[in-house]
Amino acid sequence: MATKLPSQRSLADSFGINRSTIISAIDELIADGLLETKVGSGTFVSNNTWNVLVASKQTDWKNYVRNGLHEPNLQTIQDINRYEADTTMIRLGTGELSPTLLPVKKIEQTMHSTAFDAHSLGYSDPKGDKRLRQSISDHLKEKGVTVSPSSLMVVSGGLQALQLIAVGLLQKGSLILHESPSYINSVHPFQSAGMHLTGLSKQSRETIPRQIKRINGKQKASLFYTVPTFNNPTNYTWTKEERLDLLSLCKKEQVPIIEDDVYGDLWFEKEPPPPLKSFDVDGLVLHIGSMSKTLSPGLRIGWIAGPMPVIERLADIKMQMDYGSSALSQQLVATWLSQGDYSKHLDWLRRELIARRDFTLALLNQYFEGIANWHIPQGGFYIWLELCKPIVNPTLFKLAIKEHLLINPGYIYEPNNHTHLRLSYSYASEEQLTYGIRTLSKIIRRLI
Amino acid sequence: MATKLPSQRSLADSFGINRSTIISAIDELIADGLLETKVGSGTFVSNNTWNVLVASKQTDWKNYVRNGLHEPNLQTIQDINRYEADTTMIRLGTGELSPTLLPVKKIEQTMHSTAFDAHSLGYSDPKGDKRLRQSISDHLKEKGVTVSPSSLMVVSGGLQALQLIAVGLLQKGSLILHESPSYINSVHPFQSAGMHLTGLSKQSRETIPRQIKRINGKQKASLFYTVPTFNNPTNYTWTKEERLDLLSLCKKEQVPIIEDDVYGDLWFEKEPPPPLKSFDVDGLVLHIGSMSKTLSPGLRIGWIAGPMPVIERLADIKMQMDYGSSALSQQLVATWLSQGDYSKHLDWLRRELIARRDFTLALLNQYFEGIANWHIPQGGFYIWLELCKPIVNPTLFKLAIKEHLLINPGYIYEPNNHTHLRLSYSYASEEQLTYGIRTLSKIIRRLI
Repeated sequence: MATKLPSQRSLADSFGINRSTIISAIDELIADGLLETKVGSGTFVSNNTWNVLVASKQTDWKNYVRNGLHEPNLQTIQDINRYEADTTMIRLGTGELSPTLLPVKKIEQTMHSTAFDAHSLGYSDPKGDKRLRQSISDHLKEKGVTVSPSSLMVVSGGLQALQLIAVGLLQKGSLILHESPSYINSVHPFQSAGMHLTGLSKQSRETIPRQIKRINGKQKASLFYTVPTFNNPTNYTWTKEERLDLLSLCKKEQVPIIEDDVYGDLWFEKEPPPPLKSFDVDGLVLHIGSMSKTLSPGLRIGWIAGPMPVIERLADIKMQMDYGSSALSQQLVATWLSQGDYSKHLDWLRRELIARRDFTLALLNQYFEGIANWHIPQGGFYIWLELCKPIVNPTLFKLAIKEHLLINPGYIYEPNNHTHLRLSYSYASEEQLTYGIRTLSKIIRRLI
Repeated sequence: MATKLPSQRSLADSFGINRSTIISAIDELIADGLLETKVGSGTFVSNNTWNVLVASKQTDWKNYVRNGLHEPNLQTIQDINRYEADTTMIRLGTGELSPTLLPVKKIEQTMHSTAFDAHSLGYSDPKGDKRLRQSISDHLKEKGVTVSPSSLMVVSGGLQALQLIAVGLLQKGSLILHESPSYINSVHPFQSAGMHLTGLSKQSRETIPRQIKRINGKQKASLFYTVPTFNNPTNYTWTKEERLDLLSLCKKEQVPIIEDDVYGDLWFEKEPPPPLKSFDVDGLVLHIGSMSKTLSPGLRIGWIAGPMPVIERLADIKMQMDYGSSALSQQLVATWLSQGDYSKHLDWLRRELIARRDFTLALLNQYFEGIANWHIPQGGFYIWLELCKPIVNPTLFKLAIKEHLLINPGYIYEPNNHTHLRLSYSYASEEQLTYGIRTLSKIIRRLI
């Protein structure tokens, strides 16, 4: 009945590849139910394989995959995620510290001298490790934000914070307002939970507060999401006056604010205005912070600070989602914050990022003069490059891929934005930036 | 206008408590927006506090908390979570290794000798660290499960696996079948995503496969969830024949299976039958494993193994939820699995758990003779204690709390179950077990 496969040796010979490759390929196909092994008789094509099942309307995982509740990532984001694993790619838009900017040796030293105890290796307190929460509270105080350890919770990065807020505090059909373009368009915590997003343009004549007021007058908005400092992707930083205006309007309009402050520590020459949360005497702001953009994304440590009943609700949801964040990571971050390693690291990191920014700006001056506009970043990772023609589309993305350049096109942050690219000076090396920006300018000049 | 608070010193005096306590209390109330400080003038009660806002229908976080999509934990579960933080409690039902059973020193040694590199501290591959996935694949092979590293993904514990499956593969209104009683009733990954659960009783005359067939004939079931080995809470282990019957029926009925195998490594005198996944040539089974019950819950490392397209969908969702699991934890587990530390630890752990089981059974013989029935666990953590009268209700829970005993009542695993308790011999010390089981028997005898 079942088709028998040739021996591993003869398969290896006929494809001209290593026998171990054949073995892993067969293992994989067995794991997926496409092949089966009969002891002493060899490997056979399964009769009722997964693929056959799909065709014959039996166990139809494909249907499950297609119809699941959560939206898949945008195709371009999925492509970016996939190409990022390809080490031959030059990543011109990656919102991540270069491996050379991660304090690997210092982290290793800390891990090598950290004492663990049984308490910290058990299931965590719902809000996270107490020592870590104390050190986050102290860290926030330095930025003007007064939050007691019991009014904040540890999360596995900023994205999980949004996920928890989406499913913990909002109803289906809720209206979320945000700046446009926005990072929130490139991820789906709110959309997948059935919320609607409306982007407010910073470029329009109306200021953001006025737009919030106008929209909220028609349909009650559930919250306003903002990255007010070194915005992703625009790098815009709200002035103190803009922050106070926003708070006062949102208070009047009863629209709570999610302040995503994951880039706030990465200022260059001068400190940005204090976080929105520092001016918040009404418990209107949920403040999100993270170690991913400053220390290491692999740690998966961030936090949410806000009114205690809100934090307790979110902590209860987190317990239901993943029972807390890694104890090892929590210990490490607590040590880095409380012993001053983090702030020393930031001093060094700022200097490195300034050098990378300047290097990148020089390249832009050389290769993008006349075909694009840009600003001079005062912190963070990004240059929001505005091209003179609307050519930022999937074709440009694919042309860049052909030249081994991975770019973050504007349309993943703002539907219909075909003029912008998010450039990042945080990830690629100087050599890669030089080759990448030169080559990208050639591709773009050709299209223009 | 605003009420001014007395000075910190006079507050400390009048309450007879430490001034630092006053300071943290004030900090907390400021953080929640109830108080505010005016430099040079002291601390004031905020005019528009969060509480006032609630009353005056302004920013109504309470409403947000009440109406969020995700269901809160059952009240009893929330109580259990809270009381677990109280160190004076004797935890008779906790499904967790005692601090004395965590290999803290060995974990510390591994962390002290682990070399980290920049790659592993960056954002993770969507499916998780490659070395870890290879070592999980090797580990599963020893249990008879052939899954290639690309057909499995790392998750932050078994509960996150269920969460990903719920939002990644299922539609609102999907019907989930499960054994009853079941752990799945004590958590809400499926319910919060809008799925319906139907419990199938092992005790009824019909076997589970026949019940699946009957129900599936009326309404298509989306999947069957099972903990087939050392079940939580019943400790039941499916025989090999039962496993094969289940697989063959589920294949015929096109009902995929979630095999939650987080206790499978904790067998005592003899190995349990191989996992369902080991018999699965049709890609019908998603297999969930975890380090939380065997090595340390604080690591937050588990996995899902299944057909590659399903795993890729789930990995994409995980990237949207938390961008991967902790790099530190992934490194540690990869080392423990690949260097044999994990299997050595299991040998030791099994002996310890056997001693704890025997100690607990002796106590039950002494104190529960005549008022309850129980089985002899062959692995795992639990004794599913059946009382002779239906007195397991919130009153019993509260009476136990008064005596500083924390119990896991049957009704959190099966609505309307008022005869069972989940006892665990994995957590409490011998002294605590002795005092706890004796005291509990007194309370129960009084109620009977």
